[in-house]
Amino acid sequence: MIETIRWKSGKLKLIDQTKLPKILKYIICRNKSDVWKAIHTMQVRGAPAIGVVAGFGLAFGTEQIKTKNVNLFYKEFDKIIYYLKTSRPTAKNLSWALERIKNKVIDMGYNNVASIKKAAFDEAIAIYKEDVILCRKLGQLGQKLIKNNVTIMTICNAGALAAVDFGTALSLIYEAKNKGKNLEVYALETRPFLQGARLTSWELKKSGIDVTLISDNMAATVLKTKKVDLIIAGADRIARNGDTANKIGTYGLAILAKFHKVPFYIVAPFSTFDLKLKDGRQIPIEERKAKELTHDFFKQPIAPKGIKVYNPAFDVTDNGLITAIVTERGIIYPPFKENIAKILEK
Amino acid sequence: MIETIRWKSGKLKLIDQTKLPKILKYIICRNKSDVWKAIHTMQVRGAPAIGVVAGFGLAFGTEQIKTKNVNLFYKEFDKIIYYLKTSRPTAKNLSWALERIKNKVIDMGYNNVASIKKAAFDEAIAIYKEDVILCRKLGQLGQKLIKNNVTIMTICNAGALAAVDFGTALSLIYEAKNKGKNLEVYALETRPFLQGARLTSWELKKSGIDVTLISDNMAATVLKTKKVDLIIAGADRIARNGDTANKIGTYGLAILAKFHKVPFYIVAPFSTFDLKLKDGRQIPIEERKAKELTHDFFKQPIAPKGIKVYNPAFDVTDNGLITAIVTERGIIYPPFKENIAKILEK
Repeated sequence: MIETIRWKSGKLKLIDQTKLPKILKYIICRNKSDVWKAIHTMQVRGAPAIGVVAGFGLAFGTEQIKTKNVNLFYKEFDKIIYYLKTSRPTAKNLSWALERIKNKVIDMGYNNVASIKKAAFDEAIAIYKEDVILCRKLGQLGQKLIKNNVTIMTICNAGALAAVDFGTALSLIYEAKNKGKNLEVYALETRPFLQGARLTSWELKKSGIDVTLISDNMAATVLKTKKVDLIIAGADRIARNGDTANKIGTYGLAILAKFHKVPFYIVAPFSTFDLKLKDGRQIPIEERKAKELTHDFFKQPIAPKGIKVYNPAFDVTDNGLITAIVTERGIIYPPFKENIAKILEK
Repeated sequence: MIETIRWKSGKLKLIDQTKLPKILKYIICRNKSDVWKAIHTMQVRGAPAIGVVAGFGLAFGTEQIKTKNVNLFYKEFDKIIYYLKTSRPTAKNLSWALERIKNKVIDMGYNNVASIKKAAFDEAIAIYKEDVILCRKLGQLGQKLIKNNVTIMTICNAGALAAVDFGTALSLIYEAKNKGKNLEVYALETRPFLQGARLTSWELKKSGIDVTLISDNMAATVLKTKKVDLIIAGADRIARNGDTANKIGTYGLAILAKFHKVPFYIVAPFSTFDLKLKDGRQIPIEERKAKELTHDFFKQPIAPKGIKVYNPAFDVTDNGLITAIVTERGIIYPPFKENIAKILEK
C-alpha cells in the first residue's frame, strides 16, 4: 500500500498531496508550524490523516516548550492545541486527536515536564499505529455491503491518502479486491481541489482497481444510465443524529442517490463523531479562498478577474439521506440518533 | 450588449470563446471548414449560436460549389449539410438551421445555381437576424417568472455568448435588469469546459449583474442554505414530451431543484424542439475526449496518466423535473406532451 504518513526514527514524512498525481514527493515535518502549514495548505488532507498529523504537531510543539514548571507547561500546551485547531476547522478528527493526547497526559499525572513530553509523543504514535488497524477494520466490517460484481461510486478521497494507510471508504474497496471480488469504481473529480481526479483515481489505479473518472456534474447521468450499486464516502464530522459533514458535493450526491434509489454509505472511524453536536446545523463549515475557483489547479485564471466567489469546502448531508454509517464498532443503521447512542455504550 | 456573432460586409466574425475570459478575441470564418472547426472546437458554442453559424457554413459551402447543373449542385449541397452536422451531434438548432435553408431554397424552385446560392445566403442572414429578436422575446415573455428581489441559479452559458445576442436563459436576467428588478445570480462553473466560470460569470459581470461563481457540486448546499427563487437553463434539444438535453449537470441540478422545491425552468427557442423524437431516450449524446477531464483548461495534467474517463457533454432532464419551458411562442407548462402539441398548432 501507499504510506501517506510515515513515522520513522523520530521523523514525520508525508506525501505532499498537492503535487499528485504528477510527482510522488515526500515532505518532512519537524515542528508544529510545519504541521500547521501541511494541514492548512492541504499537503495532507483527509479527516483521519489530519488527526494523526495534528497529533505529531502537538508532540513536536510540546518538545519545544522551554519551561520546567508543569502549570506553565500546560498553559503553553493548550496554546499549541488552539493553534493547531485553526489549521482547518471542519474535521473532527483534528480536535479529537489533540484532546486525546491532552487527556492522556493529564491522566498520567506526571509532575515533571520530560515525562509529559514523552507521553505526548507516545500517544501521537499510538494514534498513528491505531489508524492503520482501524481503517483495515472498516474495510473488513464493510464487506457485508459489497457483493461480487458491483459498481461503486465515490467522491473526494477517503482512501489510503486520507489516512495512514487503507483509508476509510476506499478500505472497503481494497478489502473487496483482496477477497477476490470483481468491482468497478466511478470516481468524482471533486472540485475545486480535485481530490477525486488527482488522488482517488491515482491510488485506485495504482492498486489495479478498474476506476473511471467523471466530473461531479456527471454523477446524476451515471446513476441514471449505468448500473451503480452503491455510493461510499468518508466524513469529516458526524453529529449525534448522524448528520454528516464531508467534502462539498457529498450532500448533493446523497440526494441524487436517494432519487435513483442507490444506497449511500458513510464510512468513518468513531473519532469523526462529534457527540457534543445535536445535529449538522452546528458543524462549522470552512470557507476557502476564491482562488480555488477563479484559477485552475496550476494558478491560471479560468474566471473573470474580481468575480465574487462562494467556496465552502464542506457540506452537511442530512441523516435521512444516509443508508448506513460504517464504523470500527459496527455498521450503524437508522434511526441514527438511537443507534449511535447504543453503539457508544458498547 | 456583446456581439458574439457579427455578419458585416460579407464577413462572419465570432468571439473565440475558448480564449475567454482572458482575452476577447474575434476570429473570421471564410468557408465551411472554418465554421466546422469553430463549432467542433467550441470557439462558438450554445445551441442558438451553433445554428446561426452553421447556417453561414452552409452558405459559404454553397458558394464554393463549382457545377452549374442544379441536380449535381443539390448533391453537393446535401454533402455539405451532412458534413456540418458532424461538427456537434446534440444541438438540434444545428440541423434545424441547415434544414431550414435547404427547404427554403427548394421552395424557391430556382433552376439556376446562382439564384440558389444567393437564396442560401439570404436565409442564413435571416436566421442570424431573427435570433436577436427571438432571444429578446424569450427574455420578455419570461418576465412573468421573475419577481423583484430574486436569487437565480444557472448552469453553463445560455447567454449572449450562446446566441447572436441576449441569449436564451440569461435574456430573462438582462430583461429583468432593464426593467429595474433587483436580482442576484449564482453561476455554476460547469465542468469540464467551465462555460459558467469563463463565459456566464464574464458576461453577467460585464453587464453589471451581481453574480457569484460556485462549483457544480456546491449547488445543493446553496439551494439548502441560501434563498434561491428559481433555476434557469438553456437547452440543446427538446423531445416532443418535454424531455430536455442540455449541458452535462442539468439533469442533476433539476433533481436538486425538485428536492429543495425550487422551480426549474428551461428557456429555448422553438428551433430547439426535435418533434421527431417521442422522448429523451432518442437524443444522441455527444461524448468528448478524455483530455477535457484529465487535463486542466490550460492542458496541464490533473489526473493520472492513462486513467479511464467517461465524458458525456450533455444529459437528459426528464420532463417531470421541469416546471415550465419558456419559448418565443409562450411559456409551456405540464403536461408537456399535450401542451407542446397545442402550441405547435398556433
